[in-house]
Parts: sequence; structure tokens; C-alpha cells
Amino acid sequence: PQTKLPKVGTTIFTVMSQMAMQHQAVNLGQGFPDFPVPDFLVESLARAMRDGKNQYAPMMGVPALREAIAEKTLACYGHTACPDSEITVTSGASEAIFDAVLAVVRPGDEVIVLDPCYDCYEPAIDLAGGVCVHVALDPADFSVDWQRLRAAVTPRTRMIFINSPHNPSGALWTADDMQRLIELVRGTDIVVLSDEVYEHILFDGARHESALRYPELAERSFVVSSFGKTYHCTGWKIGYCVAPKALSAEFRKVHQYNTFCSFAPAQWAFAEMIRQHPEHHAELGAFYESKRDYLRTQLARTRLRPLPVPGGYFQLVDYSAISDLPNAEFARWLCVEKGVAAIPLSPFYERPPEGQRLIRLCFAKNAETLDAAIARLEQV
Amino acid sequence: PQTKLPKVGTTIFTVMSQMAMQHQAVNLGQGFPDFPVPDFLVESLARAMRDGKNQYAPMMGVPALREAIAEKTLACYGHTACPDSEITVTSGASEAIFDAVLAVVRPGDEVIVLDPCYDCYEPAIDLAGGVCVHVALDPADFSVDWQRLRAAVTPRTRMIFINSPHNPSGALWTADDMQRLIELVRGTDIVVLSDEVYEHILFDGARHESALRYPELAERSFVVSSFGKTYHCTGWKIGYCVAPKALSAEFRKVHQYNTFCSFAPAQWAFAEMIRQHPEHHAELGAFYESKRDYLRTQLARTRLRPLPVPGGYFQLVDYSAISDLPNAEFARWLCVEKGVAAIPLSPFYERPPEGQRLIRLCFAKNAETLDAAIARLEQV
Ligand SMILES: CSCCC(=O)C(=O)O
Ligand SMILES: CSCCC(=O)C(=O)O
Repeated sequence: PQTKLPKVGTTIFTVMSQMAMQHQAVNLGQGFPDFPVPDFLVESLARAMRDGKNQYAPMMGVPALREAIAEKTLACYGHTACPDSEITVTSGASEAIFDAVLAVVRPGDEVIVLDPCYDCYEPAIDLAGGVCVHVALDPADFSVDWQRLRAAVTPRTRMIFINSPHNPSGALWTADDMQRLIELVRGTDIVVLSDEVYEHILFDGARHESALRYPELAERSFVVSSFGKTYHCTGWKIGYCVAPKALSAEFRKVHQYNTFCSFAPAQWAFAEMIRQHPEHHAELGAFYESKRDYLRTQLARTRLRPLPVPGGYFQLVDYSAISDLPNAEFARWLCVEKGVAAIPLSPFYERPPEGQRLIRLCFAKNAETLDAAIARLEQV
Repeated sequence: PQTKLPKVGTTIFTVMSQMAMQHQAVNLGQGFPDFPVPDFLVESLARAMRDGKNQYAPMMGVPALREAIAEKTLACYGHTACPDSEITVTSGASEAIFDAVLAVVRPGDEVIVLDPCYDCYEPAIDLAGGVCVHVALDPADFSVDWQRLRAAVTPRTRMIFINSPHNPSGALWTADDMQRLIELVRGTDIVVLSDEVYEHILFDGARHESALRYPELAERSFVVSSFGKTYHCTGWKIGYCVAPKALSAEFRKVHQYNTFCSFAPAQWAFAEMIRQHPEHHAELGAFYESKRDYLRTQLARTRLRPLPVPGGYFQLVDYSAISDLPNAEFARWLCVEKGVAAIPLSPFYERPPEGQRLIRLCFAKNAETLDAAIARLEQV
């Protein structure tokens, strides 16, 4: 019989990471830092293990961590979330997205995603029996095309995914976008899934437009974030979901029978980190801004044309001055022949725009790694 | 609108753990040890973090861990599993079960579970749109009632769950049971989900009848296990699934979009532990056998009648000499009034057998904890 996810293959991130290893390429593909996790966090986790925090955490997460998340959410976005009924710790943002979709999407429900988008949205929708409706962002600057988005909403629309800062482009939702979204969903029972994993990585003084800032959105949103991006530990797989009580209740039904709970010692460590080192997330934008600027300066020595990057840790570059190959072929050639792994943009789309010549470079890397990549890209 | 999981409430394990805390009861409810994780494992994990193994693991798991699992599987059950295509590391056995069900069960498919059974099976089936068909084990000794099981199979049967050593009873499948299962599924496309999380905890010289020992089952089974039970770290949430290539491929499609990968530093630590300390899992049966025997000896001083326990770390006791209350009420009374938390048996059933007066005690506890519980139970 046909498989349940006929369209799913190996993710482009795995494909490119494997190709990078095989060809000893400098890996600017899959999004992860190559610098260390803060010592404080490592030592705090080690201490939690030695203190015997090794058995099941409560399924919604360790109380101290949910309280720390609530405090941070209030401090950053002015939103009061109840740790006991509105915050759930998950095994990464991925699990949170998966749980949220399974919790509310029923067979035949429509779920709108904005292309290009992260590749885990659609399979979750498929498994729930939902219909994934792709709406293209403006290909010039990855802003929302409100006319198209409005036209895509139907009485069957159950959920809309939003994502700011945006992966892969780094584009930000503006306060105006948020207002338009509020108007779009008002009076409907549409639920918003706001993927905010890069919430602390914004540049040039921009403000993160969390759905939690807007009561009319917060009351109908699953807001998902991840410590992996904020604390340089993508392999620790701890994330969380903030949602109003009724949505959280449904979310937790799925979560408690999916992973039940997440790696307990790390939860204690993050609780300490958030409370004792709030400067870490407060300074993260500046930290990555200097990496972004460094990479862009260096890219001037290549024939790749960098697009603007208002947030996140990815730099899109246009390679049309070098090649007319489609994205995936170009990325493969760049990795195999030139020794630099990047992520092609086309897998983020249902229908990639005709003639788009873009790849994504991750700049969550040491200067040495970026230099090594540039040295190779100069030859291209 | 009605919720997607209308039957799901808070799990009985959370309910009883919360009640235990509130009433300062000795907690023999939720299944977790109160003694430490092996030092070697804690130190190995701390080392992995300091060595910078903090970014995404490969989605199927760290290669060294998959190889160690393959070696252990061969040594224990004579089954050769390919680490690259047949073994997947997951965020606990729970995630593995959830992924397996979502990977193959379609709306309308029937999935057979044997009551009493662990509470995460049915919600996964419900979310996949499947129909959960409950078949009762023999209430006398929790053996399989083959006549009933055979009668429950229909052309729509897509999956059968088996679980040995059995939670909650500790009952074991025999070689004869395995043979009957082989005959039952032969010529069908029924997939077996074998929940073997207590695979290393068998007593009195019994042999674990892993589905992996039987090629005719291994070729159609998801075999799920968990390091939480074997290494006293239920809060670390690392498990795995062994399945033939075609099933593993479908399984991984779900896994890669559910949690993507599991806490990376622990994967390195388990790889070292399995290889360098095979005596740990080899001696686990003897370790728990002495705990079982200790608890049973002490129970003789109470009016609770212990049932036989061939495996696992739970002791069922009959309380009919004390009370005629139904399971859940008795467990609540025992916790609130007598200060001992146990798990009632009824939540493991769709229809609890009339007049069954059983609760489950976890003996993965220090002697002091067991003594404290017995001192209180003597008063009952
Ligand atoms: C889970 S692998 C993908 C990591 C990531 O967030 C990205 O590269 O976009
Ligand atoms: C995930 S809480 C349940 C733990 C357990 O396996 C049990 O008590 O049966």
C-alpha cells in the first residue's frame, strides 16, 4: 500500500550535512552553531544530574522552568502566561509544532503555511489528515502578500502558521502585519501557530513582534520557541509552547502520550540560566549582528549577492552571477566541487518561484569557519 | 467543537504522583527508581557535553549508539539489525510507540491491544484515526487468551500491540505464545508493535521472548525499548525502535518531523555505557529480583496478597482482604489516609473486570523506601 507520507524523503538538512561530511566541505548548511554552549549551562546540567534530577519530570515540564519562562515572557512581551496551565515544555520546537497540529487539526481542515517555510509543518498537517494550503510570500523581500493570504482563508481554515524572524530569509513581521492578522482571524475560530524560535535574534534595533504582545492573537495562538537557538545547543532538544488554557489542555493531551516529558536535567539547567543570566538572551541579537556583518563584509569578495537579513542566523545569497543551475543542483555542486555546504531554497517551497537563484548560508559560526568558507567561495 | 481526544484526561501516573506529593505519601506509584543513575553514565554524559557534542545528532541517532544497540541486539537475541537502516533512537519508548502508530495506522484501521495495557497506546491510535480494539488478557494470570485474540483479528487489523515483560502485571510471553502469534499473523499484513521496555528485568531464570528472536516476527515488527528502565534514568527519555528497513523508513519519516533527534550528549553516554558495561544490563534481572523478593517477604506482614511477578519492576497486590472499594477509590484512600501511593489497575482497562481488587506497587526503590511503605501498609 502507498505510504502515509509519500512526499517525505530525507530532510534537506540531513542530506546537506551528510554531503558536507563526505566531501569535507565547510558546513554552512544545517542551522547549528559551531561554538560552545555557555559553561554555566553545562555545569548547571551536570549538577542537576549529580543532584539526582534524573527521573521523569512532570509532563508539562519542571515547575522552576515554566516559572522562568513565564517571567521572561512577561519581561519581553508584557504577556502573563500561567506556568501551570499555559506553558508546556517539549522536546524541541519540532515536537511542539507536531503536538499543536495533532491537537487541533482534523481530517479535511485547511492549514495555511507561508512559502518558503520550514519543512516540518506540512508532514504534521498531513499526518493529522489536514490539507496544507501554501501561500507564497513576496519573493522580493519575503514579506506577507496580504491579498493572497486573505484570499486563501476559507470556512475550512483551522490554522495559520506564522514565523518571525523567518527561516530561511530572516524577514520580520511588522506591527502592521500583526494588526492585519488580527483583523483576518477576528470572528473566526482560526488558531495561529507562531514559530518564534529566533525570537532573540533581531538586528538593527528591530523589535520582535511576538504573537504574545497582542492579546487578540495570544488568546488563539500556540507560540512555540526553542532553547536550542538561544543557548547554542540545538542537540539538547528542549523547547516550549505558550498557549491559552483551552489550547494548552488539548496540546498536553498529545504531548503526554507523545514524549510524555523532556530530558529532565536540562530543564533544571535552563531554569537557572534564564533567571541568573538574562543578559544572555538580551545580548543575543548584538552577538549575531556582528557575525552577520562580518559575513556580509567578507561576501563582498565573492560573486554571491547577499540579501538583507533583519533577523535569525541565516544569510540568503543570490548566485545568479555565477550559475544558472537550479537551487538544489547548485548547492550540490558548491558542496562537492567547491567545498562549501549551503541549503538550497527550493525545498522550502511547494512551488519554487521560477528563476529564483538563492541558497542559504548559516552564520552561527566561528570567524575561522566563516573565513574558511569565504576563502573557498572567493574561488567560485 | 468536541476535542480530538475526548477520553483523555491527566494520566493516572501524574495524578498519583501529585497526590503522593500533596499527602507526603511513600510513592510506589509511577514507575521510576529512587536510586541513582550509574556514575559512569553521568560522567560520560558530562564529558560529552564538555567535548561539544551539543548540536543536532543525526535524526536516526548517533552512529556509535546505533552500533552499540545492534551489537547488544545480536548478543542478546541473535538478531542482526542494520544500524543505518533498521535502528532509530527516539525521545523515549513513548515517542517510538507514537511514531510507529502514526507511521502505519490509517483512518479506519483496527489496532489490537491486550488489556490491561499501558495508557499511551490508545491515544496514539485515536490520533491516527485508527480503531482501538481491546482484548482482555486472562484476569487470573495475565496470560494471552488466544481464542479471544484470534477472534478479534479481522481483515481491517493493521497492528497488534504486545508487551513482555508486561506492565502492569510482570507477566511474560512464552515461546509458545510467540509461536501462536507467528501463526496468527502469517499471510496477513499485520504489523506487530512489541513494547519491550523491561527486556532486561526477568526473574527466576526466565528468558525474554523478544520479537527479534523470531525472524517471522522481526520482519514485521517495531520493537521498542527504553534506556530509562535499564539505566535508572526515566527522566532522560532516550529509547529506540528496531524495525526492518521498510518499516523503519516510514517510522523515520514521522520521527524526523516529530522530535527530529534526541538529546545528543546522552546518546554518546549510552553508547559508551552499553559497550563498556554490558554487565549492567546482564545483571539487572538479579538486581531487581532481590528487590522483588524483599518486597514480597515484607508484604507477608500486611493483609495485601501479592500476585506472582515473573518480570518488570511492579508488584500487583490484591487488597480484597482489606476493602471492597473499586481500584481508583482504594488507591486514593491508601494515599490520602494511609500515606502510600500505588497505581490502581482499572485505568489500564477499557472495561475493568468485575470485582478485580488490584493495585500496582513499584519496587524500583531503596530498601528504606520499601520499609517505610511496609511500615504504613502493616497498619492497613
Ligand atoms: C532539524 S535540522 C534543521 C535545522 C534548522 O533549523 C535549519 O537549518 O533550518
Ligand atoms: C510516563 S509515567 C509512567 C511510568 C511508567 O512506565 C509506569 O508507571 O507504568
